[in-house]
Amino acid sequence: MIARGALHVSSAVLAEKLGLDPVLARKDLAMAGVPGKPRRGYPAKDLEQAINRALGWDNVIDAALIGVGSLGQALLGYCGFEEQNLSIAVAFDSNPGLNGLTIRNVKVRPPTDLPRLVSRLNIRLGILTVPSSAAQECADLMVRAGIVGIWNFTNVQLSVPKGVTVQNVDLAQSLAVLSHAITQK
Amino acid sequence: MIARGALHVSSAVLAEKLGLDPVLARKDLAMAGVPGKPRRGYPAKDLEQAINRALGWDNVIDAALIGVGSLGQALLGYCGFEEQNLSIAVAFDSNPGLNGLTIRNVKVRPPTDLPRLVSRLNIRLGILTVPSSAAQECADLMVRAGIVGIWNFTNVQLSVPKGVTVQNVDLAQSLAVLSHAITQK
Repeated sequence: MIARGALHVSSAVLAEKLGLDPVLARKDLAMAGVPGKPRRGYPAKDLEQAINRALGWDNVIDAALIGVGSLGQALLGYCGFEEQNLSIAVAFDSNPGLNGLTIRNVKVRPPTDLPRLVSRLNIRLGILTVPSSAAQECADLMVRAGIVGIWNFTNVQLSVPKGVTVQNVDLAQSLAVLSHAITQK
Repeated sequence: MIARGALHVSSAVLAEKLGLDPVLARKDLAMAGVPGKPRRGYPAKDLEQAINRALGWDNVIDAALIGVGSLGQALLGYCGFEEQNLSIAVAFDSNPGLNGLTIRNVKVRPPTDLPRLVSRLNIRLGILTVPSSAAQECADLMVRAGIVGIWNFTNVQLSVPKGVTVQNVDLAQSLAVLSHAITQK
């Protein structure tokens, strides 16, 4: 909307575009702390800034990726994260054949280097793209190193200590729901 | 579990591994139609086959991908789909610079070719990886061509006719939740 020249945006319009309940959208937007004007809505750029600040997107977030297989390489090559200020700063893989390679400007290192690098670079976000069988072990390694948020692309339900947030993206499960639906048609 | 030599699996164990309610897991597994044995559970291979059949994974599902940008290319390069018998058979992009290129064995074609190819190849599943601004238009094109399931990687809430299933994978939203959580810590 900003790109199209909007100076103000209303919670009602945003709710409609996002398929959300208008009351919920209004309450959520109120948390951004930007005063809205009756009938006109929020000043669009101020609101965008406030949301970015609330999401931590006003600063670059460095992430560590474990598992430089097919999905890991795909994520390393995905430019869309830059828009959200996510930078994959380091990548790890236990395959000695990958160690030392540079993939999309990120050097692949052995997992034994993880604790030292995560601590030195003060990395708090980990991206988990290892095979299921290694998922919990690698998550434990990340948590011990000080990572407090894990973006989990495996199909494993990770157990993590309180205070660590896990966000699951299970592509296989998502595809399962879809292929089941079209198989029934 | 099968890879580790399990001959039988119980709904209770599966529920625990997946973090699901045991009663729900038992009811879901009953739908696979494989008789279980008290105390031993289901014969593991029979259950796997029945689940694959229920999900439509016993046959290769051909998919059409629209949007060969960074994410589209990442998905074209992701080998994990093969395990689930998903094959990206055709790819489309409106960028003339990409047309005719072959990326990971898939030739990129202009969207004007979509209706003919989707119909000829009897493709029912579409993968949407275009910029948000083109999402609805491309979804409409897919639906008109006969696609009944859309795997939507854009952040747009698509409106589709009844009978078309949309499965959303919003990486940006998922990352937003996670980066918000770690920003608060």
